[in-house]
Amino acid sequence: MTKVNAWAQMEPNGKLVPYTYELTPVDAEEVEVEIDNCGLCHTDLSALNGDFGLPRPIVAGHEITGRIVALGEVAKNKGLSVGQTVGIGWNKESCGHCDQCLNGDPHLCVNLKTIILGSNGGFSSRIKAHWLWVIPVPEGIDAADAGPLFCAGITVFYPLLEYGLKPTDKVAVFGIGGLGHLAVQFAHAWGSEVTAFSSTAAKHDETLKLGADRIVSSRDSAGWEHLKGTFDLIIVTVSVSLEWDKIIAMLAPKGRLHFVGIPYEAIPVSVLSLLIPQTSVSASPAGSRSAFKKMLDFASRHKIKAMIEHFPMSKINDAIEHLESGKANYRVVLDADF
Amino acid sequence: MTKVNAWAQMEPNGKLVPYTYELTPVDAEEVEVEIDNCGLCHTDLSALNGDFGLPRPIVAGHEITGRIVALGEVAKNKGLSVGQTVGIGWNKESCGHCDQCLNGDPHLCVNLKTIILGSNGGFSSRIKAHWLWVIPVPEGIDAADAGPLFCAGITVFYPLLEYGLKPTDKVAVFGIGGLGHLAVQFAHAWGSEVTAFSSTAAKHDETLKLGADRIVSSRDSAGWEHLKGTFDLIIVTVSVSLEWDKIIAMLAPKGRLHFVGIPYEAIPVSVLSLLIPQTSVSASPAGSRSAFKKMLDFASRHKIKAMIEHFPMSKINDAIEHLESGKANYRVVLDADF
Repeated sequence: MTKVNAWAQMEPNGKLVPYTYELTPVDAEEVEVEIDNCGLCHTDLSALNGDFGLPRPIVAGHEITGRIVALGEVAKNKGLSVGQTVGIGWNKESCGHCDQCLNGDPHLCVNLKTIILGSNGGFSSRIKAHWLWVIPVPEGIDAADAGPLFCAGITVFYPLLEYGLKPTDKVAVFGIGGLGHLAVQFAHAWGSEVTAFSSTAAKHDETLKLGADRIVSSRDSAGWEHLKGTFDLIIVTVSVSLEWDKIIAMLAPKGRLHFVGIPYEAIPVSVLSLLIPQTSVSASPAGSRSAFKKMLDFASRHKIKAMIEHFPMSKINDAIEHLESGKANYRVVLDADF
Repeated sequence: MTKVNAWAQMEPNGKLVPYTYELTPVDAEEVEVEIDNCGLCHTDLSALNGDFGLPRPIVAGHEITGRIVALGEVAKNKGLSVGQTVGIGWNKESCGHCDQCLNGDPHLCVNLKTIILGSNGGFSSRIKAHWLWVIPVPEGIDAADAGPLFCAGITVFYPLLEYGLKPTDKVAVFGIGGLGHLAVQFAHAWGSEVTAFSSTAAKHDETLKLGADRIVSSRDSAGWEHLKGTFDLIIVTVSVSLEWDKIIAMLAPKGRLHFVGIPYEAIPVSVLSLLIPQTSVSASPAGSRSAFKKMLDFASRHKIKAMIEHFPMSKINDAIEHLESGKANYRVVLDADF
């Protein structure tokens, strides 16, 4: 048994406090990781704010990087070794034998187990996961800054890969925050023309530096008129309601409106507006293990990284307040200091 | 100039009456066709009922079969010949030089010209169209019964081809009418498992004969519970509102809810319901010229045809009443008798 130090919310709306528990030894297919860093994502805040109706205590955190400290008998044969630097995202175990797993889509496993919803997360010193979801950090990626790639990064990279985006395609990104600023970088490095839709004029220059070819106000739909029929892929990273009919009208023929953010309200979709230009509305969660590997190699090669502010994990409550108040510059990563 | 005999609606809500006009000689890229038969589609009724706000007179009809009587200088070199049996659907001209045309998707041409919306249709003795949209009827297809393939047929066949349906996939068809009864036949011949969702218990045996593996009530969503997560493709041919959230829940991971009917009301789409199983909502209009050819060859090889009642075109008002009253057995075809 390993003693784990963590930061937990013990009651609804409470501050996070030190909390300890024990990990059982690794099973055959499991890997145990000593956590060095963990990103702070809006989904963590949702969990702590009670949106998922979870029982307390909650140990959140699902953008984990660290080093392997133990490998189960099966996990030893899967290209992992003790001491290796790895990352873990939202998913921690898939069954390996359902149709989706067998088809190379373990992120759609019908028996999927995730961090936070099912077990303690990365605001802690140690975690265990199935070997498939313990992902080596390749050369050229700074592990201390890599946490957000394991959730925000894979989430926006996956649709580019999955739906066969072409470098000749035109991409729009709605919302230039934690996810969106990575989407801009990935789509730019992919070779595509990138239009960033943002509500924050202050981020203008930064967003251009990340690779956006132009920036358009996400609030002033009057300024979208000349963009009708333009985009092959529109990635929505926000959870607010927008003028969806006017956004759908900006799709090129055969274009796709793809959600990785989850708007609280249902999207009203006019079938006629999809039918004439033969367009689609879709959404996806994170990505497969294979996509993770491709995303990390691509990020390494193109020097793509999240813009990050570091906080020591002992200042986690300050970090949460910083993110909730909208002051965070894209992404916060907590550095373990137990 | 050719004198054309036709049946036209001269004023809103009026009966169709004999009407004549003249066709100018064929342009270089045009083909003139002597019409033998023309299907009667719900879209014709919509036009006549004022849904499209068209000026009168209206000559509807867009499921045309007939014989070529004249070819323009360019059209002569496109594999067509005088006397050849051909069909014409909703589209009659595309520009040939927009991105969609150049990409093999002329049905998405930004300069597309269609019958009814822009010119007189097939309830007439003669029609002209651009050679690309004058489609040879292959061996093994009875032209007198083929009209519905040029609208209903291509519309339901195209998504199978376009989205790469696999014979191992499971397909559902909502609405077993003019479009749906062809969708069942195509998907069955494709090798897929077909579930027909129908509101009409009376069609049960017929639908099984067409190739459905099972029939489920489209009105009793309580009976859908065991079908959650089942279908790789759900084709909706109806225009009424259904329980869309429960229909989306029947999609398998990576499944697609695809509309070829146009519901009057917007579809409320919960992004979370798409995101977890990575599903899509989409729609498409008719299909490309290439898809037409494949559809006709496939229909010929698999002996797929619409179930049809024939009326002489001089009884067109009776035929319309028959269709509007819901008495038509799937599809009505009018036989020209000018």
